[in-house]
Amino acid sequence: MSTTTPSDIEAAWKRIEPYVRTTPVIRLNRGLLHPDAEVFLKLELMQVTGSFKPRGAFNRILSNNVPAAGIIAASGGNHGLATAYAARALGYHAEIFVPTISSLVKQQRLRDYGATLHVTGANYKEALQASTARARETGALVVHAYNQMETIAGQGTCGREFDLQAPDLDTVLVAAGGGGFIAGIAAWFSGKAKVVSVEPEGCCCLWTAFQNGEPVPVSVSGVAADSLGSTEVGELAWEICRHSVARSVLVKDESIREAQRWLWRELRVIAEPGGAAAFAALLSGAYSPAPSERIGILVCGGNADLQSEAFKA
Amino acid sequence: MSTTTPSDIEAAWKRIEPYVRTTPVIRLNRGLLHPDAEVFLKLELMQVTGSFKPRGAFNRILSNNVPAAGIIAASGGNHGLATAYAARALGYHAEIFVPTISSLVKQQRLRDYGATLHVTGANYKEALQASTARARETGALVVHAYNQMETIAGQGTCGREFDLQAPDLDTVLVAAGGGGFIAGIAAWFSGKAKVVSVEPEGCCCLWTAFQNGEPVPVSVSGVAADSLGSTEVGELAWEICRHSVARSVLVKDESIREAQRWLWRELRVIAEPGGAAAFAALLSGAYSPAPSERIGILVCGGNADLQSEAFKA
Repeated sequence: MSTTTPSDIEAAWKRIEPYVRTTPVIRLNRGLLHPDAEVFLKLELMQVTGSFKPRGAFNRILSNNVPAAGIIAASGGNHGLATAYAARALGYHAEIFVPTISSLVKQQRLRDYGATLHVTGANYKEALQASTARARETGALVVHAYNQMETIAGQGTCGREFDLQAPDLDTVLVAAGGGGFIAGIAAWFSGKAKVVSVEPEGCCCLWTAFQNGEPVPVSVSGVAADSLGSTEVGELAWEICRHSVARSVLVKDESIREAQRWLWRELRVIAEPGGAAAFAALLSGAYSPAPSERIGILVCGGNADLQSEAFKA
Repeated sequence: MSTTTPSDIEAAWKRIEPYVRTTPVIRLNRGLLHPDAEVFLKLELMQVTGSFKPRGAFNRILSNNVPAAGIIAASGGNHGLATAYAARALGYHAEIFVPTISSLVKQQRLRDYGATLHVTGANYKEALQASTARARETGALVVHAYNQMETIAGQGTCGREFDLQAPDLDTVLVAAGGGGFIAGIAAWFSGKAKVVSVEPEGCCCLWTAFQNGEPVPVSVSGVAADSLGSTEVGELAWEICRHSVARSVLVKDESIREAQRWLWRELRVIAEPGGAAAFAALLSGAYSPAPSERIGILVCGGNADLQSEAFKA
C-alpha cells in the first residue's frame, strides 16, 4: 500500500504555504512540569479556522482539478470549517453536510464562510453517507476528514514545521481521532523522533486498533467526542501509524479538563478538549518522560466554548 | 538625567532569563489586514502571570539586595501579580497593597502567589501612598509599577526578544500606561525602528505629555483603565519617550473591543483591553501603515474577563 513520505509533505507545504499560518511554539520554563524534561508546545490552535485541519483541506483541493460542482465535505466541526474556509480562499463553491446534532454556532460560522449547508443525518456517519451520495450526483471533489493521502500529507506539514522550530525532539505527543493528523506527523518524524498517540478513554479507535492488530469499530463518548470521536481509524492512517507510532496512551476526561484549565491559567491559551488531550497525557502522568527528554506537544484546536467551567477564574 | 541603553537591557536579560518565558511571535498572513504590510504580533500575554510585568519586577528585585522585610508593591492588577510571583520564585516575602476597588479574583490570585495583601485606599494612588509609608517603616524593597530604571530595562527585554524574533521591523506599536513598558521598548529600538505609542482616549497620559511638552496629570476612564490608567507618565519613562517615541496615537474604547473580538475570532487569542490596544491602532486605522511596512505589535496582557461580550461567538 502506498504511504506518505517526507517529500510528499515538503510538496504539500509548497502548495499550501500561501494560505496557512506558521503557528508559534512556546518552550515551557524548565521545572514547571518536570524537573528535567524540556517541553515545547506548538500552538496549532492559532491556525486559520482554529485547528490544524486547513493544512489537509488546502492540500487536497490544490492537488486536484476541481470540477464545476466544487467541493463537498461532511463535518459539523473543525474539518467542515477548514474545508469551507479553503474553498472560499481558492474561489470554489463548497457544500458541507453536517449532522443535526451539530451546534448552531458552528453552522452559522460555516455559512459565514460562504458554504451551502445541508443539515442532515443523526450523526457524522449519516451526514457522510448523504455527502457521498450527493458527490456522486454532482461530481464535486470530496474532501474527506482524514482518509485521503493529500489530507495526511497536508497535516504532516505541521510536523515538518514543528521540527524546524524545535529541532531534535525526542518525543512528539499527538491526539488522535480518525488518524489523519497523527499519520501525517508520524510520517514526518519516522526514524527521527518517537511519536506517541494520545486518545481519550471514550474516543480511542487508534488505541483499539493497536490492541487488535487492525482497525475495528468503537463507540465514542466524552468531552472530546466532537473533534476526536471517530468510530474507526482510517485505513490509510492505520497503514502509517502501525509502523511509525511508537505507543498509544489513554487519558481520562477529567485529565483533559484539567489540561484545559492549566493551559488557560498558566499560558493564557484556550484549547478545546481535543486540542488539550495531548498535553493532558504529560500533565496527568499518562505519559511519563525520561530525565532530560525533549518533548514536543501539539495543541491542535482552539474552538472551545468559553463558557465551559474549564475557563472559570 | 541617566537613561536606559541596549546594554542595560542585555544585562537585565541575563538576570531574568531563568525566570521568564520567551513569548512567541506570529506573522499574520499577508493581505489579512492590509494588502502589503507585514504584521508580526508578539504574544507577550503568554508571559508568566499573563503580562509583560514580570520582566521588570524580576530585574528590579535581582538588581538589589533584598532586606529581611522583603518586597513591597502597590497594584491591584498585573504589576501586583508579577511582583508577588517574582518574590515567591526568588524566595522572598511580598506585601502587596491593592485599592478596595480591585477585583476579588485578582486578590485571590495574589494570595495564591503567597503575598500578604493589604486592601486599602480608594484608588491606585492611595494604595501606593500606603505602601510607601509601610516601606519606610519596614525597610522593604519597593518595586514600583513603572518609575524605576531596573523596571524599564526589564521591560526592554521584551523589545530585544521581539527584535531577534522578527528582525528589521520598521515600526513597533506599543500600548502606554505609566510609560515603563514603552520606555523599555523605545530604549531598545532607538535608532533602529520607529516606536509608536498607542493610548485609549480615556487613558492618555503620555499623549498628553507630548501635547504639553511635559508630564501633566490626567483623569482616567474606559475599558483599559485597569491596566493603562495611570494619571501621569513616570518621569524616567518620559525622559526616554520624549526622545525615542516617534508618534503617539489615540484609540477609542470601541476599537479596543473590536480588536479583542478580532484576536479571538481570527487567532484564538484572548487579550485584555490594555493588551489589545496596540493592535486596535492598526485594525481601526488610527495607525495607517505605508506600503510594505514591516510592523511589530505587542499584545501585552491576557488577564481578561472571559465573560466579556468581546468573546461571544
